Amino acid sequence: MLSESLLATRTNNMGSSAIREILKVVAKPGIVSLAGGIPAPEAFPMQHINKLTQLVLEKYGSTALQYGTTEGFMPLREALVEYFKGLGITSTAEEINITTGSQGVLDSLAKIFISPGDPLAVEAPTYLGAIQAFNPYEPNYVQMETDEDGLIPESMEEVIKKHHPKMVYLIPTFQNPTGRTIPVERRKKIAEIAKATDTLVIEDDPYGQLRYRGEFQTPIKVFAPDHVIYCGTFSKIFAPGLRLGFYLAPKFVREWLVKAKQGVDLHTSSLSQTLATEFLNGGYLENHLPKIIELYRPRQEAMLNAMEKFFPDSFTWSKPEGGMFIWAEGPKGMNILELYNEAIENHVAFVPGKYFYTDKGAGEETMRLNFTMADEATITAAIERLAQAMNKVVTR
Amino acid sequence: MLSESLLATRTNNMGSSAIREILKVVAKPGIVSLAGGIPAPEAFPMQHINKLTQLVLEKYGSTALQYGTTEGFMPLREALVEYFKGLGITSTAEEINITTGSQGVLDSLAKIFISPGDPLAVEAPTYLGAIQAFNPYEPNYVQMETDEDGLIPESMEEVIKKHHPKMVYLIPTFQNPTGRTIPVERRKKIAEIAKATDTLVIEDDPYGQLRYRGEFQTPIKVFAPDHVIYCGTFSKIFAPGLRLGFYLAPKFVREWLVKAKQGVDLHTSSLSQTLATEFLNGGYLENHLPKIIELYRPRQEAMLNAMEKFFPDSFTWSKPEGGMFIWAEGPKGMNILELYNEAIENHVAFVPGKYFYTDKGAGEETMRLNFTMADEATITAAIERLAQAMNKVVTR
Repeated sequence: MLSESLLATRTNNMGSSAIREILKVVAKPGIVSLAGGIPAPEAFPMQHINKLTQLVLEKYGSTALQYGTTEGFMPLREALVEYFKGLGITSTAEEINITTGSQGVLDSLAKIFISPGDPLAVEAPTYLGAIQAFNPYEPNYVQMETDEDGLIPESMEEVIKKHHPKMVYLIPTFQNPTGRTIPVERRKKIAEIAKATDTLVIEDDPYGQLRYRGEFQTPIKVFAPDHVIYCGTFSKIFAPGLRLGFYLAPKFVREWLVKAKQGVDLHTSSLSQTLATEFLNGGYLENHLPKIIELYRPRQEAMLNAMEKFFPDSFTWSKPEGGMFIWAEGPKGMNILELYNEAIENHVAFVPGKYFYTDKGAGEETMRLNFTMADEATITAAIERLAQAMNKVVTR
Repeated sequence: MLSESLLATRTNNMGSSAIREILKVVAKPGIVSLAGGIPAPEAFPMQHINKLTQLVLEKYGSTALQYGTTEGFMPLREALVEYFKGLGITSTAEEINITTGSQGVLDSLAKIFISPGDPLAVEAPTYLGAIQAFNPYEPNYVQMETDEDGLIPESMEEVIKKHHPKMVYLIPTFQNPTGRTIPVERRKKIAEIAKATDTLVIEDDPYGQLRYRGEFQTPIKVFAPDHVIYCGTFSKIFAPGLRLGFYLAPKFVREWLVKAKQGVDLHTSSLSQTLATEFLNGGYLENHLPKIIELYRPRQEAMLNAMEKFFPDSFTWSKPEGGMFIWAEGPKGMNILELYNEAIENHVAFVPGKYFYTDKGAGEETMRLNFTMADEATITAAIERLAQAMNKVVTR
C-alpha cells in the first residue's frame, strides 16, 4: 500500500483543517451563516450573462474556447488599462497579467520568492486564503500590528528592519477579515518605507470597488509603483465562478510570475477572459456595480445597527465603509469556542478570528461576521440571537 | 530597486526558455508550423456551444457563476463516472476530482510529493509541460528507456530499484512527444511492478480518445487501482480554453491534492464545469468525438504518407494509431539546429526532440511533428519541404 510517508516535507505545512472542522456545522439546516465570505448570487449580472456569452461567441468565435497565452487575453489586458485608470493607476496592457482568481497570483508569488524559512510579513489578522497559498512554500510568518486604521506603518518598518521579509502582504481596503481600510496618509508612509528599504509589497484589493460610503483611497501602488504588486479580481464585481484575477507588477516579477503560472495551469480560462473583456468594454461593470452596492449597503447597515442595538457593552467592532466583513472583539479572556457553540445552538454561525492570525494564541476573543449572504431581516434576527449567546457566555 | 536577488532558490529551476526562443520564429508569416501541440479550432463544437451555454444558465443559474468546492462540481463528477466506465475504470463521483486543466494536477502532485532532490521517474522523452509543472519543486529526474512500444517495463523496474522515485510519470497512450502507445501486456507488467514496489504511477491520458485505428488499450489504472493516479482532460475532446481536467486517485493522495489545489486557485471555473457536465450528459461528446477523429485521421495519414514518400532513408519515425504527434529520428550525428534553420528557410517549423528529455545530450537527432493544425494538402507540402531541408543537411 502507498502511504503518507511518500509525502514531501512541505506538506506538513498544508494540513491545518481546524477551521474546516468548525465550519462543518454551518451547513446544518436552519443555521444562518455569517461565517461565509462569498458574494450573494443576487449580485451576479444574471440578466446580462446570456447576452454576454452570445456576444462573446459571435465576436471571438473559437478563440473563446482555444488555448491562450499565459500572460492573458490581450483585449482583456487592454480593457484593464481603463479599469486601472479609474483607480488612479497608470499602466499598459503589456504590464497587466491575468490569473486564475487572485488566488493564482498569491501561489505564484510565494513560489518565486519564498525559500523554506524565508520571512514573509502579514497583517495581524490577515486573509486565510493567502496563508493557504503561501504555506506550501514554508515561509516564516512575521506579524505586523494593526489598529482601526489597518496596518500601523511603524510596525511594518520595525518588522522590515528586524526580519527583512521577502514580501509584505497587505489588503489595504476593506480588509479580510477586519473590514478596515488604511487611510491615504498611512498608505504614503507604507510606500515610503517600501522604497527606502527596497521591500516588495503585495497590495491585494478584492474588495476596493465595494464602497458603501466615504471616500476612495488611492492604492499604495500609485505611491510606490516599482515596489508594489497590485492584485485585483472579478470575483466581487462580476462572478467568482469564472476564476478571474489580474495583477500589475514590476517587470522582472511579472516575467517570473508568468513562468510559474505556465507550470500551474498554462493559462486562465479563455471563455472567462472573453466574458470579462465584454463586461468591461460593454459598460456592464459601470452599470452593474451600483446594483451590487445597493444590495450590500443596507445589509451592512442592518448588521451594524443590530450590533449597536443588541451586542453587550463588553464587545467592540469595526465600522467599515465597504467590503464584506465586520470584525468584532469580545472581552479579554472570553472563550470563543464556548460562544461559537452557544451561537450554533441559537442557529447562527461566524468564524472565530484566531484562524486569521499566523501567531498561535493571538485573536482569541475575536470574530469575523459576513453580511453579504443574507437579507436585512435575517441579519438583524441573527445578530440578536448571536447577542443572546454572547450575554450567556460573557456573564457566566 | 527591487532585484532578482529576492527570488527563491527554486526559481533557478524554472528559467529554461531555450524552447521558447527557438519557437519564436514559428510565428513569422508564411511558416507552416508542425511545432504546435494544440487542437484545431475546427475540432471545437462551435455549432453546439451557444445552445450549451444557454442550457447551462437556465439549468444551473447562478451556480454556474458562483464559487464552488475545490473537489469539483458534483454533477460533473457524477457524469465522469460514466466516462470512466467507458474506459473500463470503476469509480464513484466522490473519487473523481476536477482540476484547472490536467496541468493543475501535475503541479499539485509535485507539490505534495516532491521535496528538493527527490527522484522522479519520467519516460525518455516525456511531456515538456509536465517538466515545467514539476521543476519548481526541484525533483531529481531519472529517465526510463522507451522503444516503439513506449516505456520498457524492465527499465522502469531497474530505475525503481536503483532510485526509489517518489512517482513515475507516464503518458501511456499516444504519448507526447512520440505518439507511441504502450500495449496491454506491458501495461500489466507496469502495474505489477508498481504494486510489487509500492510505487506511485501518474497515468496522464490527454490523447487516449483520439484513436484513428487499432484497438483501445486498457488504462494501467485498471490493473493497479491503488497505485495509479489517472489524469484526464476536456482539452482534446471539448475545448482547451475551458481549462478542465480531472483525475482519479487513491484516497489519501486525493485529500492532499485537494488541499494543494485550494491554495492555488480555490476551485476550477464553475462555468467551464457546468458546460462540461451538459457536454457529457447531453450526449454531445458521443456525437462530437467521431467528428474530431474524422478531422484528424486524414491529416495524420497525409503526414505519414508524405513522410514515406519524401523523407530520406536515413530517417525513421513512429506510426501512431492516434493522438496529435509523430516522432522522427535522423541519422546519428545530424545537427538538428542546422536542420531547424534549413526548415525555417523552407517555411516549415517543428520542435527539436531534445527539449523533451530531462538528461542533457539525449535525443539530439529527434524531432516532434504535429498534424492537427493544418489540412492535408498543407501538411503534404510542408513535409515535402521539410524533406528537402533534411536532404540538404544530411548529405552535407
